[in-house]
Amino acid sequence: MFDLNTYLAEKVERVNAALESILKTSEPPDRLLQAMTYSLMAGGKRFRSALCVAAAEALGGRLEDVLPAACALEMIHTYSLIHDDLPAMDDDEMRRGQPTCHKAFDEATAILAGDALLTLAFQTLSSVESENAEQAVKWLRTIQLISQAAGYCGMIQGQMLDMDSEGSRLALNELKSMHRLKTGALIEVSLRCGAELVGVNSSQIQALQSYARHIGLAFQVTDDILNVEGDPAIMGKAVGTDKLHHKSTYPSLLGLRESKTFAAELIENALQALESFDQKAEPLRAIARYIVDRKK
Amino acid sequence: MFDLNTYLAEKVERVNAALESILKTSEPPDRLLQAMTYSLMAGGKRFRSALCVAAAEALGGRLEDVLPAACALEMIHTYSLIHDDLPAMDDDEMRRGQPTCHKAFDEATAILAGDALLTLAFQTLSSVESENAEQAVKWLRTIQLISQAAGYCGMIQGQMLDMDSEGSRLALNELKSMHRLKTGALIEVSLRCGAELVGVNSSQIQALQSYARHIGLAFQVTDDILNVEGDPAIMGKAVGTDKLHHKSTYPSLLGLRESKTFAAELIENALQALESFDQKAEPLRAIARYIVDRKK
Repeated sequence: MFDLNTYLAEKVERVNAALESILKTSEPPDRLLQAMTYSLMAGGKRFRSALCVAAAEALGGRLEDVLPAACALEMIHTYSLIHDDLPAMDDDEMRRGQPTCHKAFDEATAILAGDALLTLAFQTLSSVESENAEQAVKWLRTIQLISQAAGYCGMIQGQMLDMDSEGSRLALNELKSMHRLKTGALIEVSLRCGAELVGVNSSQIQALQSYARHIGLAFQVTDDILNVEGDPAIMGKAVGTDKLHHKSTYPSLLGLRESKTFAAELIENALQALESFDQKAEPLRAIARYIVDRKK
Repeated sequence: MFDLNTYLAEKVERVNAALESILKTSEPPDRLLQAMTYSLMAGGKRFRSALCVAAAEALGGRLEDVLPAACALEMIHTYSLIHDDLPAMDDDEMRRGQPTCHKAFDEATAILAGDALLTLAFQTLSSVESENAEQAVKWLRTIQLISQAAGYCGMIQGQMLDMDSEGSRLALNELKSMHRLKTGALIEVSLRCGAELVGVNSSQIQALQSYARHIGLAFQVTDDILNVEGDPAIMGKAVGTDKLHHKSTYPSLLGLRESKTFAAELIENALQALESFDQKAEPLRAIARYIVDRKK
């Protein structure tokens, strides 16, 4: 019987080991490296790297085939959190149960640590043995996909829209488009990289994209639900903050009950998208179910 | 007779045209793209892209061979200026004769515009036709070199050291190491990319690295001199600010006269490094001479 917790724990361990070895470049670490390490190793769920690895495995690949991409995705995710938490942005003081980077260090260090993690992501993606021409083509393509998803037509644009919309009531479609950029783009590309790096036909890519879009949105809907009824002790951060900041959320637009139904439907659609995949896609299926059941 | 102004004007025009076509993705531009464009097209000298192109040409290559790298270097340089100008960092209000990005827009937009330009640099570097395996190997290598130079062992570490040193008096060697990271690393990699992208032997690489180190340092020494005796009207920014902030500079450590002698010596060394190059390196030689003669 497949156990998701065991599966995820093993992936987290291997991704964390890879991240730690990338970060271990100076001893003792200087202040900048300390700040980067503080945020990158703060015990994140490693959701994006798990998706990247699970997509590769669903198509017969191995974690080793995609490890630099898995690491880069976590670096980019972490940099975006560090910058989003800054006083000029969301002004958050706690993240993952500990002070945010600019609280633990200072604002300038947090800005630079974010910049450095983003840059390190691309350094990691381009560090593969580049004499192998076939590999070089694949990794260059991965850099193209990730930079598009993380950039001003993707994640950064989503954060910009999120800030601009604060205080104003969004329509459901506007909320969906904003989330598709802010969190969906990086989730989608995590799966896509994992798939393309092990080589895949276009109908499989389409199926994984559909899976990705549905779980990405479900992830956000659940985040909003947890901000209403989650346990701050389990989540490691405050709840009720969306309402406090008059943010448009799925519960505020649809109601709590309807939001839960919506999340469940999205997961059903995600599972349907994987119908043509064999048991190697079991981790992806379990991750989809976990998204709506999670408590943090 | 070679004329540097004509040469640079032509390169600036072609690099700017390429940058503008990269930025023209949404019409009308949204606020994020407006901020990116505002800073990227603010009339910079395009010094790094000129060095990249001149290095390629010195070895028989053409501007077209290195254009994505030239554009990416300007994006990275601009992002670093936007973030360095932020209130939490150097807190500068004017840059290139106009309000800094966070003054013209707002702090959050400036942070995101910087992030987006850094990401766009890697999107540009990975956008070359990746089916060509030989090209893919070259561009992956370029991404590796640029991310190393721009990252936490290069430019970002330099900015961190610069901030940490504010108010304390550095020794000359500490000042040199800081500048080698903060501005030198990106200047060195500009030449190196230009050279490696057109293919080059290792003695030529070494000669260009030596040239790069000397002009990079000379550039900084001249910057410090201009901050003492430059004309704010020509420079488009305030002078005397280093003294005001008790910054360690070459004039403060060596005196103004000795600093000028030092800059002249550095340029002599840079020119010597190019001895084995033919007349195709004339632009590089002229750029070296220009560095100490410039008024802004």
